Amino acid sequence: MDEIKVSTEKTMVIASGRAHPGLAQEIAEELGTELLPLSAYDFANGEIYVRSGESVRGKDVFLLQSHPAPLNNWLMEQLIMIDSMKRASAKRITVVSPFYPYSRQDKKGRGREPISARLVADLYKTAGADRIMTVDLHTAQIQGFFDGPVDHLFGIPLLADYIRDQVADDDVTVVSPDTGRVRVAEQWADRLGGVPLAFVHKTRDLTQPNKAESKRIVGDIEGRTCVLIDDMIDTGGTISGAVQILKDAGAKDVIIAATHAIFSEPAAERLANSGAREVVVTNTLPIPEEKRFEQLTVLSIAPILARAIKEVFTDGSVTTLFDGKA
Amino acid sequence: MDEIKVSTEKTMVIASGRAHPGLAQEIAEELGTELLPLSAYDFANGEIYVRSGESVRGKDVFLLQSHPAPLNNWLMEQLIMIDSMKRASAKRITVVSPFYPYSRQDKKGRGREPISARLVADLYKTAGADRIMTVDLHTAQIQGFFDGPVDHLFGIPLLADYIRDQVADDDVTVVSPDTGRVRVAEQWADRLGGVPLAFVHKTRDLTQPNKAESKRIVGDIEGRTCVLIDDMIDTGGTISGAVQILKDAGAKDVIIAATHAIFSEPAAERLANSGAREVVVTNTLPIPEEKRFEQLTVLSIAPILARAIKEVFTDGSVTTLFDGKA
Amino acid sequence: MDEIKVSTEKTMVIASGRAHPGLAQEIAEELGTELLPLSAYDFANGEIYVRSGESVRGKDVFLLQSHPAPLNNWLMEQLIMIDSMKRASAKRITVVSPFYPYSRQDKKGRGREPISARLVADLYKTAGADRIMTVDLHTAQIQGFFDGPVDHLFGIPLLADYIRDQVADDDVTVVSPDTGRVRVAEQWADRLGGVPLAFVHKTRDLTQPNKAESKRIVGDIEGRTCVLIDDMIDTGGTISGAVQILKDAGAKDVIIAATHAIFSEPAAERLANSGAREVVVTNTLPIPEEKRFEQLTVLSIAPILARAIKEVFTDGSVTTLFDGKA
Amino acid sequence: MDEIKVSTEKTMVIASGRAHPGLAQEIAEELGTELLPLSAYDFANGEIYVRSGESVRGKDVFLLQSHPAPLNNWLMEQLIMIDSMKRASAKRITVVSPFYPYSRQDKKGRGREPISARLVADLYKTAGADRIMTVDLHTAQIQGFFDGPVDHLFGIPLLADYIRDQVADDDVTVVSPDTGRVRVAEQWADRLGGVPLAFVHKTRDLTQPNKAESKRIVGDIEGRTCVLIDDMIDTGGTISGAVQILKDAGAKDVIIAATHAIFSEPAAERLANSGAREVVVTNTLPIPEEKRFEQLTVLSIAPILARAIKEVFTDGSVTTLFDGKA
Amino acid sequence: MDEIKVSTEKTMVIASGRAHPGLAQEIAEELGTELLPLSAYDFANGEIYVRSGESVRGKDVFLLQSHPAPLNNWLMEQLIMIDSMKRASAKRITVVSPFYPYSRQDKKGRGREPISARLVADLYKTAGADRIMTVDLHTAQIQGFFDGPVDHLFGIPLLADYIRDQVADDDVTVVSPDTGRVRVAEQWADRLGGVPLAFVHKTRDLTQPNKAESKRIVGDIEGRTCVLIDDMIDTGGTISGAVQILKDAGAKDVIIAATHAIFSEPAAERLANSGAREVVVTNTLPIPEEKRFEQLTVLSIAPILARAIKEVFTDGSVTTLFDGKA
Amino acid sequence: MDEIKVSTEKTMVIASGRAHPGLAQEIAEELGTELLPLSAYDFANGEIYVRSGESVRGKDVFLLQSHPAPLNNWLMEQLIMIDSMKRASAKRITVVSPFYPYSRQDKKGRGREPISARLVADLYKTAGADRIMTVDLHTAQIQGFFDGPVDHLFGIPLLADYIRDQVADDDVTVVSPDTGRVRVAEQWADRLGGVPLAFVHKTRDLTQPNKAESKRIVGDIEGRTCVLIDDMIDTGGTISGAVQILKDAGAKDVIIAATHAIFSEPAAERLANSGAREVVVTNTLPIPEEKRFEQLTVLSIAPILARAIKEVFTDGSVTTLFDGKA
Repeated sequence: MDEIKVSTEKTMVIASGRAHPGLAQEIAEELGTELLPLSAYDFANGEIYVRSGESVRGKDVFLLQSHPAPLNNWLMEQLIMIDSMKRASAKRITVVSPFYPYSRQDKKGRGREPISARLVADLYKTAGADRIMTVDLHTAQIQGFFDGPVDHLFGIPLLADYIRDQVADDDVTVVSPDTGRVRVAEQWADRLGGVPLAFVHKTRDLTQPNKAESKRIVGDIEGRTCVLIDDMIDTGGTISGAVQILKDAGAKDVIIAATHAIFSEPAAERLANSGAREVVVTNTLPIPEEKRFEQLTVLSIAPILARAIKEVFTDGSVTTLFDGKA
Repeated sequence: MDEIKVSTEKTMVIASGRAHPGLAQEIAEELGTELLPLSAYDFANGEIYVRSGESVRGKDVFLLQSHPAPLNNWLMEQLIMIDSMKRASAKRITVVSPFYPYSRQDKKGRGREPISARLVADLYKTAGADRIMTVDLHTAQIQGFFDGPVDHLFGIPLLADYIRDQVADDDVTVVSPDTGRVRVAEQWADRLGGVPLAFVHKTRDLTQPNKAESKRIVGDIEGRTCVLIDDMIDTGGTISGAVQILKDAGAKDVIIAATHAIFSEPAAERLANSGAREVVVTNTLPIPEEKRFEQLTVLSIAPILARAIKEVFTDGSVTTLFDGKA
Repeated sequence: MDEIKVSTEKTMVIASGRAHPGLAQEIAEELGTELLPLSAYDFANGEIYVRSGESVRGKDVFLLQSHPAPLNNWLMEQLIMIDSMKRASAKRITVVSPFYPYSRQDKKGRGREPISARLVADLYKTAGADRIMTVDLHTAQIQGFFDGPVDHLFGIPLLADYIRDQVADDDVTVVSPDTGRVRVAEQWADRLGGVPLAFVHKTRDLTQPNKAESKRIVGDIEGRTCVLIDDMIDTGGTISGAVQILKDAGAKDVIIAATHAIFSEPAAERLANSGAREVVVTNTLPIPEEKRFEQLTVLSIAPILARAIKEVFTDGSVTTLFDGKA
Repeated sequence: MDEIKVSTEKTMVIASGRAHPGLAQEIAEELGTELLPLSAYDFANGEIYVRSGESVRGKDVFLLQSHPAPLNNWLMEQLIMIDSMKRASAKRITVVSPFYPYSRQDKKGRGREPISARLVADLYKTAGADRIMTVDLHTAQIQGFFDGPVDHLFGIPLLADYIRDQVADDDVTVVSPDTGRVRVAEQWADRLGGVPLAFVHKTRDLTQPNKAESKRIVGDIEGRTCVLIDDMIDTGGTISGAVQILKDAGAKDVIIAATHAIFSEPAAERLANSGAREVVVTNTLPIPEEKRFEQLTVLSIAPILARAIKEVFTDGSVTTLFDGKA
Repeated sequence: MDEIKVSTEKTMVIASGRAHPGLAQEIAEELGTELLPLSAYDFANGEIYVRSGESVRGKDVFLLQSHPAPLNNWLMEQLIMIDSMKRASAKRITVVSPFYPYSRQDKKGRGREPISARLVADLYKTAGADRIMTVDLHTAQIQGFFDGPVDHLFGIPLLADYIRDQVADDDVTVVSPDTGRVRVAEQWADRLGGVPLAFVHKTRDLTQPNKAESKRIVGDIEGRTCVLIDDMIDTGGTISGAVQILKDAGAKDVIIAATHAIFSEPAAERLANSGAREVVVTNTLPIPEEKRFEQLTVLSIAPILARAIKEVFTDGSVTTLFDGKA
Repeated sequence: MDEIKVSTEKTMVIASGRAHPGLAQEIAEELGTELLPLSAYDFANGEIYVRSGESVRGKDVFLLQSHPAPLNNWLMEQLIMIDSMKRASAKRITVVSPFYPYSRQDKKGRGREPISARLVADLYKTAGADRIMTVDLHTAQIQGFFDGPVDHLFGIPLLADYIRDQVADDDVTVVSPDTGRVRVAEQWADRLGGVPLAFVHKTRDLTQPNKAESKRIVGDIEGRTCVLIDDMIDTGGTISGAVQILKDAGAKDVIIAATHAIFSEPAAERLANSGAREVVVTNTLPIPEEKRFEQLTVLSIAPILARAIKEVFTDGSVTTLFDGKA
């Protein structure tokens, strides 16, 4: 039989939703390519329309979307983009969501709660995603919500390397703002050279219903520079409160570090006035000019995403980007 | 063996998202019950949180959500509600979406377009919906997008019965605003007593690229009362334009009828000034006070939804509500 | 570690069911290849047996089957072929069904009806189809019934280009035989140079049960050459009747055009005697000698299918075959 | 909250395809009920249309279809019926296929063969079947092809009890017509009182390609009454040939017994002239008058199916119908 | 049509694997019923065979299995039991796994690790489980690994209420043995009356590879009674080491509390000799006589499981068992 | 747009579980490669941990595991390995299980039995297997349990070619130890040159409950060399008993042949003392030194597996390895 054969070659394209085009642009530049031309607009009633301006048939598509407010809008846009790519015969679709939406709703804290982070993983799958790439999940277990490969990238090395330089001459304690982040604070402490740990304990007495809650520091912070860490800063209430508590308890100085700068109102104002020496974040979410303030330092996550995308496309190892982790 | 047996009884609850509580309330009253108490609120970054205030374990849940703007928000809220009900062990979850979101994106009109109406059906399924109830789909084929039962209810009888009274003494022609609705116009014509049909033809000449489009009426409307029908009115541009064309072509009078009053800006103004004698719609979508105008008549869809819900719950026949259809 | 690597190359094969081998042969010739040798025969009780004569491991298989009567037989044969290819490790299986079976059962017209067109899409998926290629679906929404890419090819350009030459000197009106095809008639009208539209209106009066139905032409056809279009011609009753109505209403001449020539008895006789000047169809379905008649023109769909198959195989763009559509 | 509660009751309906209405009727009578009124007809091109005449919402549907030739037609009819029941909100759908279609294609005998019996199970599932009831599968492993409960009923007790009476005074040997049925013959032998076994061995010599095949009896049959058993009789070639071989080898008499009387041409003639004393089968498949002959005895499977349906409906035990088997 | 109707009643059965029959027996007694008679044995090569001694058709099955070593054996036994129940037409299958197997492998800590806890959830689903009931998951996110309802019960109230009595006169600090359990320690602290928290910090310096790790206590424990908590005790190395560190740091006394007593060798010896005043656990896992020691207190989880099973069966609320949690 | 393209190349790796590393090593050597370095160890409570030492991203992974006792352990290890490979982005995962676990539980012999062989296929699929390669399934129908390609390799040619040399000068009869293997015995008989068949008939009389069972040979074996075949030897009871029966009935000599040497206690002793001249098996399962005995011959299956793996990797034909079968 005369068969028709062609030699194969694979092609990568990067597409971006409308939530954070600057980051997508940076990644494309890192990789020396251009973004896929893509139409996306809203109908009058809020329905979203998308369409690729070029064929994606047989291509390896990396589809970046960030998730600032209005988050549900950007999520639906992303799902519709995935659907359009699937039906346009993309060979493989990797969802790149630097900030994983609904990551805080990762368990039933109380009966009848949804597990929205799992729902999001299922929605990605249903729309047609083959794999997910994301940064600093609220809990690493979220990787298990997706039935397929998840490339979980880390922002902590980027942040910690920067901060190490800032605190080279200080006695440092890493502080978790609550009991849920102590494990992550430990990773920071290791990375900053085996420094001590502390956390804020919100005391409640379940046996006496009306007794007020109080907060106290557990660990040694007096006269020390505190690196107050979290994975995300939303309205900034907890973290700003923690700065005050640390100062009151005798901390010399406080630096705040977090990967995801959600910065809902009135985060910028709170942080600017919190008394922290510096607030260090990444650009996994867009930070508009009006939310920036003097003490803010924004590190770009684009180089890390670009390298990971390249490794995935060329079947290299993402793990090696993080010394065996990821 | 000593077995544990209990006699069974089934229980229905109606829950509602935040998009159109009034409609849910009306339905509950029709059925002589109350809505499930449900917490739902937005986090600062737009993420939605929901939780039922009462156990839904083993219950037959009807979950109503309407989909005005911001449509994606209400859709995500609905999906999260479904997830929470599924995980709270609801026995069966019926999604009640009077206006099916993204129903206009029901095919690939051009290459690389999504089929968002199918995506929505799949998202409902993934979240945990067992069945869907909806009213006047943009195309009936959308029923086939869902892998399970769909109760497709009709608003036309409600609207047509009302309009028949208004035009009892007139020579009536039913008019479709474009070629895509002629089939539906035919159903109206039958229902109004075998009256004539007409439609607006937007002429293009694909063989001569730069030739302008023009619109002309096909069918007999001169000196007649035109019932200009559509399934939905979004910004009202096409339908208002059609009123003018009909008037110019000698129509005596025009009544507009549509099931879904999306009324995106500037629909209310356009319709009020269109020259139409009356605009008749239903409340499948909420119509806020500021979008109401003198010629507007709103008929309530609640009795139809209530009866259909009751038939579904008691395993009666929804088909009989519509003379063998549905 | 010593890894074993080989460079990759991809191979395409075209296989055909027994329903319309001539069309498969034409396509293979267009592509300069040969059909996959395939055994297929019926057991005495009607069960079908199939087996490929050559390995399809790792190959890109295009599996053509047409669906004339006995349609269910050819559909089952196609499903069994897909199953055998899947289990024989084909890399990708594209179902090529020029006439999509059960495409008219695409919605629940009445309660308790099946949606057989969706069922067919699911059966293809279950058997192992990765994608579908088809021509002129009864409704474009059927694309959304399949959870994966559908290449929807168009026969209208082929037919319209031919007819344009035949009616170059005439005043033309495009006529839809009922209200359901007016949208498609509009595409024809555009393609033939912005000519007028008309349709046949079957009038019923639902308010008076026993009143007889009547048919009338809506639109201007007097003294004009009517191009009476449809997607398929089954027994030819409606379309032949429409020729008569048009003639009675003063049409100068009628040309019938349709993509799918099902030609169930007594279509050939009806069409031959209908008074139509010419009947133009394609060979998406086989038309045996005894169903051919003097006025019949059959255009071959093979070149369009061959080009689309080639684009799919080489990851080119099918959309460009149809000026941005498909 | 005021909840709406109703006490529950469950309802069973039996529906039948058009392949073997007599059997369905017999079952309904055994159960003291009537068949669901169901429209089913063929379009001119062979497409099938079905619709229930009554609501099946919330009901426990048993959908009987037999599979004589044209088998693919009846299978598609059954799938479409399942789809219509699913979309009409049946609570549970049990497929009753007394003769499981494609049961002989239950493995890849050679490379690139389909496993059509698995495909059939998947098609049932896809269409919406919740469970399957069937009689005497070609191999019991087919139960594992369906992802859900399969009620596998046995015809052997019915047949064996009848035959035991016919051969009460004879020296009996149970004979398998080939090596594949020896296991089943053993069950017969036990049931007939621990009688001897024999089988026909078709000798081939793979080491010498052109050497002719020959058949010989293995086991003791001389002067004995042979009960020649099989699960199905298709064209009757093998089984009639076996009668001759047995007679030539000195058998006193031969009685043929099989569950499924496919009786493709020329089975009736072959069996009538085979020299067998009697041919005993069941009516899992319809046996039209012209295929009946003098030595034929047909036992009705209806009572067994009726009892099994009743047990399934009332959550009783089907196993007890067969002494712990099934 | 004469329909067959029966009134419905639902029946519950409790079945148990062979890993911990005592717990199943206790639960059955709490509920006033008996366990389903079930055969289960091992073939010589380790394959497991199971079969219910009674019909489970239409029943609500609760299938308890505990997971001590050899854990994989008990897990496979449970999966096979689920399969047998599914195929025997159980109406609903609830997996009751008091100790969720592989719960510690709930994320990719490093690249190329499995997420075995998700795999287990998927295996349960595949085998046929409809829902899961479990106690004190290693991380609450594991609930999201299962696509369906999970009843997550809590052992902490049982343990804490017991311990509160033991330490009524002491100054208490709750201690987490590492940074990963501080959140859980906080719940304990609240439940014991708003007492202080502490944890053991394992210090590493990633910037200086060869520097030794050291452990230090963070928080106030001097002269206080420490309640050292964990979710599970496996070999007891970490927890016994923590007792020593606490004692060295001046703790007055140490009580160990954990839900799951895995007690792999040499846990019993280590704990007995650790210096802890008391070790309090539950019987989610069987604790054979040879692993019991003087200071050990075992509280039965059976009443909690029994109550939860009853609520699930009767569609009550499990949440109310835990004051709004679960 | 600047696209990023790379030419493609595919890479194969062979990984092995811990059950039978010798076989994996042999296969790797046949292929001229090395095994993937893989960590695998047991936690104290029996949970298994695995992790690949190298990236498998984009690779074609062949994952070999054999299944001796403790079989459930090795099966879970294999499932966890598959999960880790899937999550590490392997391109395709082929499960190589030379002895398919639970293959004897391939049907419901009695009501309420599991179909564990189907369950195993589903577990493989769930964990992430794309295809299965195995040797001499207990019944060929098991191929249909997996929804995807199964490469079913044959050990009989290997065994038969060896034995043909051993019995070149003898009058040979192939003997099945029971009625269930007669079909397989027939394949042996053909392969050994069209020799006669016999089998052992275990006679029972179901009509007289207390009558003892007895065994007798059906077929001609007197004075002949019997090749007693089976697919697997577990405890060796049946097969050793059959040797005795054959000898008692006048067989000159007996050679035992089987593909899978499970050799549970006391198989080795029984076989050594059975009186058989030789026992010929393959190494699909590991045979430790203490289970080997004088008459035992072990043929290596590695060359067959190596060739099949190579054909699968290079998209060649596995069927040609077995003359059109497989």
